[in-house]
Amino acid sequence: MTDAPDSNLPDNLPDAARRVADAVRLDRVQARLDALAQIGGTPDGGVDRPAFSDAEREVTALFAGWCAELGLTVTYDDFGNLFASSDGNAAGGVTHAAGSHLDSVPNGGRYDGALGCVAALETVEAMGDAVFAPVAPFEIVVWRAEEPYRFAQGRVGSLICAGSLTVDDLVPRDPTFDVRPYLAAEARETRATRPRRAAGRGFASLLELHIEQGRRLEASGGHIGVVTAVSSTRRLCLTFTGVADHSGATPMELRRDALLAAAEVALATERVAQEEPLAESVATAVAISATPGAMNVVPGGAELLLDIRSTDPDAISRMAVKIGGVAQDMTEGRGVAVGVETLMRGDPVRFDAAVVAEIEATARALGYTAERMASGAGHDTQSMAHLTRAGMLFVPSRGGISHNPAEYTAPDEIERGVRTLAAVWARRVL
Amino acid sequence: MTDAPDSNLPDNLPDAARRVADAVRLDRVQARLDALAQIGGTPDGGVDRPAFSDAEREVTALFAGWCAELGLTVTYDDFGNLFASSDGNAAGGVTHAAGSHLDSVPNGGRYDGALGCVAALETVEAMGDAVFAPVAPFEIVVWRAEEPYRFAQGRVGSLICAGSLTVDDLVPRDPTFDVRPYLAAEARETRATRPRRAAGRGFASLLELHIEQGRRLEASGGHIGVVTAVSSTRRLCLTFTGVADHSGATPMELRRDALLAAAEVALATERVAQEEPLAESVATAVAISATPGAMNVVPGGAELLLDIRSTDPDAISRMAVKIGGVAQDMTEGRGVAVGVETLMRGDPVRFDAAVVAEIEATARALGYTAERMASGAGHDTQSMAHLTRAGMLFVPSRGGISHNPAEYTAPDEIERGVRTLAAVWARRVL
Repeated sequence: MTDAPDSNLPDNLPDAARRVADAVRLDRVQARLDALAQIGGTPDGGVDRPAFSDAEREVTALFAGWCAELGLTVTYDDFGNLFASSDGNAAGGVTHAAGSHLDSVPNGGRYDGALGCVAALETVEAMGDAVFAPVAPFEIVVWRAEEPYRFAQGRVGSLICAGSLTVDDLVPRDPTFDVRPYLAAEARETRATRPRRAAGRGFASLLELHIEQGRRLEASGGHIGVVTAVSSTRRLCLTFTGVADHSGATPMELRRDALLAAAEVALATERVAQEEPLAESVATAVAISATPGAMNVVPGGAELLLDIRSTDPDAISRMAVKIGGVAQDMTEGRGVAVGVETLMRGDPVRFDAAVVAEIEATARALGYTAERMASGAGHDTQSMAHLTRAGMLFVPSRGGISHNPAEYTAPDEIERGVRTLAAVWARRVL
Repeated sequence: MTDAPDSNLPDNLPDAARRVADAVRLDRVQARLDALAQIGGTPDGGVDRPAFSDAEREVTALFAGWCAELGLTVTYDDFGNLFASSDGNAAGGVTHAAGSHLDSVPNGGRYDGALGCVAALETVEAMGDAVFAPVAPFEIVVWRAEEPYRFAQGRVGSLICAGSLTVDDLVPRDPTFDVRPYLAAEARETRATRPRRAAGRGFASLLELHIEQGRRLEASGGHIGVVTAVSSTRRLCLTFTGVADHSGATPMELRRDALLAAAEVALATERVAQEEPLAESVATAVAISATPGAMNVVPGGAELLLDIRSTDPDAISRMAVKIGGVAQDMTEGRGVAVGVETLMRGDPVRFDAAVVAEIEATARALGYTAERMASGAGHDTQSMAHLTRAGMLFVPSRGGISHNPAEYTAPDEIERGVRTLAAVWARRVL
C-alpha cells in the first residue's frame, strides 16, 4: 500500500451515500451517548465500565435493545462479543460491519468506544430514514474487553474473534478473577433466548469511528483523521528481587531495595522514550507494586509494568533494549536482581489501502478536511485487519485527553465523524 | 536518665537470678521456636502470620496452651492481647511482665517477636525448675498486631492497652478489612471460657527480648544490645494527581504522569536519608500505587507511603521537609499536584534508666558483653515506657536481615539473650 492519496477515487459521493450522511441526526447520537454514559457514570461525567462488570452487562443490554428496535438480529459469540446483523445472522453470511466497544477503563471517558458503537447504530437508523434497501448485509459489532484492564492485554474480544487469542491464553491482572465461570454463567443464562454467533463468520469489511486520543487533529484544526496504521505495542513486566529488611533498623547503605530499583527504571523508561525522534514512540510505566508493602519493611520485591509503542518496530526494540539495560544495572548498583517478561508483542498494523483512500475521499466529498495519521492507541479493528478490508477514522479529542472523565469531543466534530462513517459504510452496502 | 553505666549496681548477680539463668534450656527454646514457625510457615523457612489471620489465631492458641501448662492463667483484653499471669489475673494486681508478639509481616522471619515470647515462657519454666517461689506476681504478654500490616501503624495492641489508641482510630490498609466484627466474633466465642483482662491492670515492670534487626552487634561481635531508646517514626502518605491519558496516543512531552512523580520522590527519599549524618536516620518508600494502573493509561494518580525514622527528632523533621520540597517541585516540573498526609508521628522513647543499667550489669555478670544502643525499629515495650519501668535487650541478627525468611540468630546468641532476660526478670520477681 501507499500513503499517497488515491487520485483514481472520485471525490463525488454516490447519491445514496450522501443521502444517508444527510439523514444522520446529531440529536439522536447525543441522546444515545448520554444514555450510555448514565451507566457506570461517575460524578465527574466519566464512566466506569470495566469488562465483566455489572455496568458493562447493563450497557450491553441497553445497546442490544436499540439494535433490536432497528430490526437487527442480535447475537453473541462465546466470549460475549455482540453482533447485530441485518441478515438474521444467516449461516455462512458475510457482512459489511462497523462498530467499536462499550467497556471502559476504570474512571474513563464517555466517548472512547461508545462513539463508534453509537455512530454505527445511527448509520443504520439513517439508512432506514433515507429509505434505501441495502444490497449487501451489514452488521454492528460491539467488541468486548477492548481495554486492557481485566487482562494484561487489550482488544481481547476482537482478538478472540479473529482466532489470534483464546480464553485460555488470558492472564488476569487480578489473580482471583477467572473469566471462565463468568462466561459459562452467561452462556447458561442466554442460551435459551440468544442464538450464538457461528465461529468464523466472515466480514466483507470492517469500519470503526473513534476519538483520536491524541492532539494532532486539535493542533492542525483538522476534521477527520484517516488512520493508516496502528503503532506496535510491547508490554513488559519487570520483576525486581532485593532483600526485605526492617525499615527502621537497616542503615541506608546496607539496603537492597527493590522498589527504588523499580522507580529508577520507571524514570529511565521516560528518558528512553524522550530520546526517540518519532513523536509516536512512547513508553509508559503504568504500574509499580512493592512487596510486602508493609510500613516497616524495606521492599524486598517490586513489579513494574511497562507499555512501549511506536509505529516503527525498530524504535520499540531500541527502547526495550535500553530499558532492559538500565534494569540490569540495578543488579550491580543496588544488589537487586531483575527479571523481564514480555507480556505482549504486537505487530504493527496497516489498514487496507482502498478503505483508507475511500474514507479520505468521502470525508472531503462531504466538505471536511481529512488527514492521514498513525494511531498510537490500539483498536479492535486492527485485530481483524489481516482478515478483511478494515479501516478507521478519528475525530478530534480535546487536549488529547482520554481514559479520563475529561475526555471530550465537540458536537460538530462528532457530527462530521458520524456522517463520514455513515457515507463510507453506505457506499459499501447500498 | 543518663546513658552512662550505673556504677552503683553490683555486677554480682543474686544467687536466685543466676540459678534461673542456669536453668534456661536452649533445647526447649529451640523446640518451641520450631513449633511456632510451623504455623504460617513458608517453604523458605519464614512465617506468614499477619494479625487477624488464621495462622495468627492458631499460633496464639498454641502459645496460650503452653502458658496454661505452666500453671499460668491465660486472659485476653478486648483487642486480643494475651496475658498469662502467675496471680490468676487478680483484680487490681500489679505484675512484673515480659513478652513480645507472635504476628509477623507477610513472608517474615521466625525470630521477630516469637523469640521474646518464647524467652518469657522459658524463664517461667526455668523459674519452676530452679524451684523458687516468686515473691512478686509476674505475667507473660503477647501483644497483638505489632507489625504495621493490617493498619497504617504498628504496635497496635500495646498502644491500645496503654490507652494511647482506640480501635476506632485504626485505619485499615485494605479498606475492606474491618476489625470490629472480627473482635466481636472473638469476644462471643471466648466469653464462656476466658475471663477478659480488667482494663487498666498495671505492670510493675515490662521487659522484652528481641532480635536487633540491624547490624551493630554483628559488626562489633557483641552479645547483648541494651536498648536505651527507640527512634521516632513519622509516616507520610503522599498523593499525586496528574492527568490520566492514553499511553499510546499521548506524546511524552504532553504527559502529566503521577506515577513518575511518585517515583522521583521515592528516589529523593533515599537521597535525603543518605545526607543525614546519623546512621539511625533512615527513610523508606515502602509502597507505591498507580491509578488506574491499566496497561494503556498514563497514570493520572499515584500514592507513595513513606516511613521516616531517627533517634533525633530534628533529623526526622529535616528529612520530611526536604522530601516535601521535592514533592512540591513535581507541580512545576511535571504538572502533578501533591498532597501530603501525616499518618503517624511517633515521639522518641527512652527506656527506664534503672532497667537499662540492670540489663547491662546482668549481662556482664553472666559473662557476656553488653553494649548500649538505640533501636531503629519500634517495639511494643516502648508503648508502655511512660507507664511502667520498661526495658529491652537485643541479640544479634545475621546480616541485620529481618522481615524476611532469611532472618537468623544463632543458637548461642539466642541462649545468651534468654539467659540474660531470665536473670533480669528473676531479679524482679524472686
